[in-house]
Amino acid sequence: MSLLTASARGVFVISVTPFTDTLELDLESVDRLLEFYLARGVDGITILGMMGEAPKLSGDESAAFVRRVLSRVDGAVPVVVGVSAPGFGAMASLARSAMEAGAAGVMVAPPGTLRSDEQIRGYFHDVAELLGPEVPFVLQDFPLSTGVVLSPALIRTLAVEIDSLVMLKHEDWPGLAKITRIREAEGPDAADRLSILCGNGGLFLPEELARGADGAMTGFAFPEMMVEICRLHGEGERDRAQDVFDAYLPLVRIEQQPGLGLSIRKHVLTRRGAIPSPAVRKPGATLSELDLAELDYQLGRLERRLASLEA
Amino acid sequence: MSLLTASARGVFVISVTPFTDTLELDLESVDRLLEFYLARGVDGITILGMMGEAPKLSGDESAAFVRRVLSRVDGAVPVVVGVSAPGFGAMASLARSAMEAGAAGVMVAPPGTLRSDEQIRGYFHDVAELLGPEVPFVLQDFPLSTGVVLSPALIRTLAVEIDSLVMLKHEDWPGLAKITRIREAEGPDAADRLSILCGNGGLFLPEELARGADGAMTGFAFPEMMVEICRLHGEGERDRAQDVFDAYLPLVRIEQQPGLGLSIRKHVLTRRGAIPSPAVRKPGATLSELDLAELDYQLGRLERRLASLEA
Amino acid sequence: MSLLTASARGVFVISVTPFTDTLELDLESVDRLLEFYLARGVDGITILGMMGEAPKLSGDESAAFVRRVLSRVDGAVPVVVGVSAPGFGAMASLARSAMEAGAAGVMVAPPGTLRSDEQIRGYFHDVAELLGPEVPFVLQDFPLSTGVVLSPALIRTLAVEIDSLVMLKHEDWPGLAKITRIREAEGPDAADRLSILCGNGGLFLPEELARGADGAMTGFAFPEMMVEICRLHGEGERDRAQDVFDAYLPLVRIEQQPGLGLSIRKHVLTRRGAIPSPAVRKPGATLSELDLAELDYQLGRLERRLASLEA
Amino acid sequence: MSLLTASARGVFVISVTPFTDTLELDLESVDRLLEFYLARGVDGITILGMMGEAPKLSGDESAAFVRRVLSRVDGAVPVVVGVSAPGFGAMASLARSAMEAGAAGVMVAPPGTLRSDEQIRGYFHDVAELLGPEVPFVLQDFPLSTGVVLSPALIRTLAVEIDSLVMLKHEDWPGLAKITRIREAEGPDAADRLSILCGNGGLFLPEELARGADGAMTGFAFPEMMVEICRLHGEGERDRAQDVFDAYLPLVRIEQQPGLGLSIRKHVLTRRGAIPSPAVRKPGATLSELDLAELDYQLGRLERRLASLEA
Repeated sequence: MSLLTASARGVFVISVTPFTDTLELDLESVDRLLEFYLARGVDGITILGMMGEAPKLSGDESAAFVRRVLSRVDGAVPVVVGVSAPGFGAMASLARSAMEAGAAGVMVAPPGTLRSDEQIRGYFHDVAELLGPEVPFVLQDFPLSTGVVLSPALIRTLAVEIDSLVMLKHEDWPGLAKITRIREAEGPDAADRLSILCGNGGLFLPEELARGADGAMTGFAFPEMMVEICRLHGEGERDRAQDVFDAYLPLVRIEQQPGLGLSIRKHVLTRRGAIPSPAVRKPGATLSELDLAELDYQLGRLERRLASLEA
Repeated sequence: MSLLTASARGVFVISVTPFTDTLELDLESVDRLLEFYLARGVDGITILGMMGEAPKLSGDESAAFVRRVLSRVDGAVPVVVGVSAPGFGAMASLARSAMEAGAAGVMVAPPGTLRSDEQIRGYFHDVAELLGPEVPFVLQDFPLSTGVVLSPALIRTLAVEIDSLVMLKHEDWPGLAKITRIREAEGPDAADRLSILCGNGGLFLPEELARGADGAMTGFAFPEMMVEICRLHGEGERDRAQDVFDAYLPLVRIEQQPGLGLSIRKHVLTRRGAIPSPAVRKPGATLSELDLAELDYQLGRLERRLASLEA
Repeated sequence: MSLLTASARGVFVISVTPFTDTLELDLESVDRLLEFYLARGVDGITILGMMGEAPKLSGDESAAFVRRVLSRVDGAVPVVVGVSAPGFGAMASLARSAMEAGAAGVMVAPPGTLRSDEQIRGYFHDVAELLGPEVPFVLQDFPLSTGVVLSPALIRTLAVEIDSLVMLKHEDWPGLAKITRIREAEGPDAADRLSILCGNGGLFLPEELARGADGAMTGFAFPEMMVEICRLHGEGERDRAQDVFDAYLPLVRIEQQPGLGLSIRKHVLTRRGAIPSPAVRKPGATLSELDLAELDYQLGRLERRLASLEA
Repeated sequence: MSLLTASARGVFVISVTPFTDTLELDLESVDRLLEFYLARGVDGITILGMMGEAPKLSGDESAAFVRRVLSRVDGAVPVVVGVSAPGFGAMASLARSAMEAGAAGVMVAPPGTLRSDEQIRGYFHDVAELLGPEVPFVLQDFPLSTGVVLSPALIRTLAVEIDSLVMLKHEDWPGLAKITRIREAEGPDAADRLSILCGNGGLFLPEELARGADGAMTGFAFPEMMVEICRLHGEGERDRAQDVFDAYLPLVRIEQQPGLGLSIRKHVLTRRGAIPSPAVRKPGATLSELDLAELDYQLGRLERRLASLEA
């Protein structure tokens, strides 16, 4: 498998981790899920992210899931493996086994204990040293979850100083000005230009692409929306891209709720046949009858809007 | 002026505080702004909230603004005054002067230092004692900003224990289940039922009303959207309410960004003629050319959607 | 090995994890370290706590260390194993292997994401269910590190509701009133009385014992100080206990510094021959020449004070 | 009154704010309190700090207290006024009235919302602009309370960039290496060398002076301890300074507890005749009988130790 580079672009879908109704890791269903994602045209797959319930897996389960995914994808698209951990012990062993199994790179979020720029910079230099120069990595910038804020200048510094840092998973909120400022700091033909893929469930995807992002890395249950918007953006079809976006927005808004969103995503993926069970492990939200009725209502409206868009 | 009660409902708009281009408090423009709000059919007005730049005013400015607003509104609708402060000294003096000038009640958010339920409960008992039994108050529940999480059970306990607590400004996220759980805890004919008005820029208003909220308390620059949705909800017109909501949603999404949102809101209000200047005091976000272009684009699309809705 | 019960008392020393100078896990040195601790008269040993660099070990290293410790201690004193983890996957597998190897119980700190009493209560019920009713556990209450505050009433509720919760590692600061309030809530002959062992490097040990704590669970590099104070307290020798305490206090103060303290502790333990190397894994503090000189100075003064105490 | 400069040194005591037993601001007692402080030989006085219950005062009370203190001190020593506030409105008006009344400078802590170095730097540039170039200010660096971490490099940058920043109130913990690193960054004869006065109740005062601090700025109820240690340090009497320190350390430890410490401090000051009442305003800790008995016990031991030191 080839390694992740800073020229990566398009949609890297954040994959859920399928469980059975009794909450066993459902390795059997991995194939079906990956087929679902690949059939929607994604350019890459990210596993064991925050929305992949990574901390709820034992070390053995993580390793088994990584191997199964990589074996099934088999080089069709690059696979990024989330290896964030409270300490370097677990990070190193998961990263090593993932790369050996054929991952294209790994993803690391800063731990919530980091405060000053100096601490953040020291941490990512340590991470790079731990992973080794041959392992490309993605910096996950998600302040709402981590509490750690990285300024555009600091991200640029890290990109220049650390060769193996090739991608930013951009998930700051608000974050549009951040993309602009990073791109301005890079200049037009920077040697150390980062690939920037955006998260937050796609809530600002049209604007993010216009600001210079290279695509999306998030797990919205309709990955075809993101693929389509990236395609239309590439063709300069701004209005059309925004029409598609607006059609999905009421649902994006619901799926993007912290905590609850994962249960909603897994329900939608179950309805769409991508996984057999919407089960999430603890700690996780259980959807009530009201939640499900609201979701049904929005899915019905989405269907009608998509039909009218195509008309 | 009559006092705020738990039967309050509808749209209490969170008012901005107008400044001149040179960042002076613009008392002259208060009348025009209030006319704008009242003409959109709001049921109440909240001033000096977090989006009212309250901490950026000196004590004298706050008092002058409160008097000007109350004098102009003159009992047409109830006015709620935000009095959150890091200590009780400033809270007490602002609350006293607001009530003397004719406010219907005050609003208090918990300081970020509170952690356990015991601490939160003690704090609001102290607040109620400080304000006195004759001053109705609103509990502002906004964990994203304050870091303080109030469980539905704790909110119910406070409502039962503190007579002068009459309203919840609901701004938790996700927060739909919270409304349901508070209403369930109250039972069908609770003596201590709280009025629940929802914030978060209106991002979940249709669902919130369906869950039992009594309306909205937020500052979206198109208050007529919220008024219309409340009206349609009251008439049982769910699809129609959702159509209106969907038309505004791309803009709601943009205005609801923390920090940046206030600058966007003031720009829209300036475009609409409600205030003469979009100036915000420091610390505050400055909109770039790109921000303004994106906003223009969305305002243009909104106009077309509204036209097609009315057709 | 017998299991941990609520009648546990005395000094459970928090063990460091020995590394070689090249930062390999130093299993060979485990025996010497345990002999050091046991020779000082400790009543129990806690491994893989926050000061045991647990997150810096891989899953395999943790398991190997646990087995080595339990094999060496061989039932001489109870061993508690820290199993706090960001998710239940790693917690369950480490707890299982620890109990199988002969641990007396496990220790769990709440994750920093918990906010309301309801969330905290739900979390520990989930933990108890995950561990199973036959695994006694210690609740680690360390707000300075976790950001989670548990009120005395909530701790009492958990003690009553969860049979397998047998001990509180008390590390709140200030925390003396908390001990008093928990003991008052229990009443004189509570069926669900918790064992309370105190942390914070022993900084308030005399007062904690007087308030009703059953001992200490912390890793001060002179465990004999804590053993002696517990003994003198038991004999009613308050002044003598305070004299011993005061002699060590200038050093306690230095070792109790967050972050830096672990490096200082390992240096002292190396000087005392308990471990061969003071190495700490990243992230961790490196002691400067100035740090070491200050430490030497304080160790010299301590020696003289102890000599004069014995005189 | 002359203005604060970077050559300030010695002990700036953080003054409490006296209240009557019925919690009125006790202006009558200000004179006695200031005489107490001045008689202990302090080199400066800081009022309205975090331990001065500043947020619990109304704007009018703050202004009256500032005028009373400045009128009584009358230029005998420099007076620094804490003006930290959640917004610039209150900060500007308090700073202006304090400087007009004769303050030597003001003190500002960063608000807890700041995260990245960029945000912190922007904030203090805004503060400096707000205050104006003629108002010297102290940067209060207290991460345990504010949650904001400033690296030594960032502090140095601020010192170089902002002429009116003349002093660091150092209250990081652990913080010794920080002093060393700031002094190293300044070099031996820096034009922009900051005065560094240390807080944390004096818990590391001997080490701080040895690292290059210029003195203390904290409110320990025995300011003569800090004055004496600074004097002995200046005379090169390290052992003697440490002896004095050790004598007070058991009490320093107790007074330095967050929250509770202020009540303890006011009790000790009341015992010593400095203020007539130990009353603290809400929110604040009430001392129990046990707390008071522990305090009495420690005060008795202190007296005996001091007697033996002098012998």
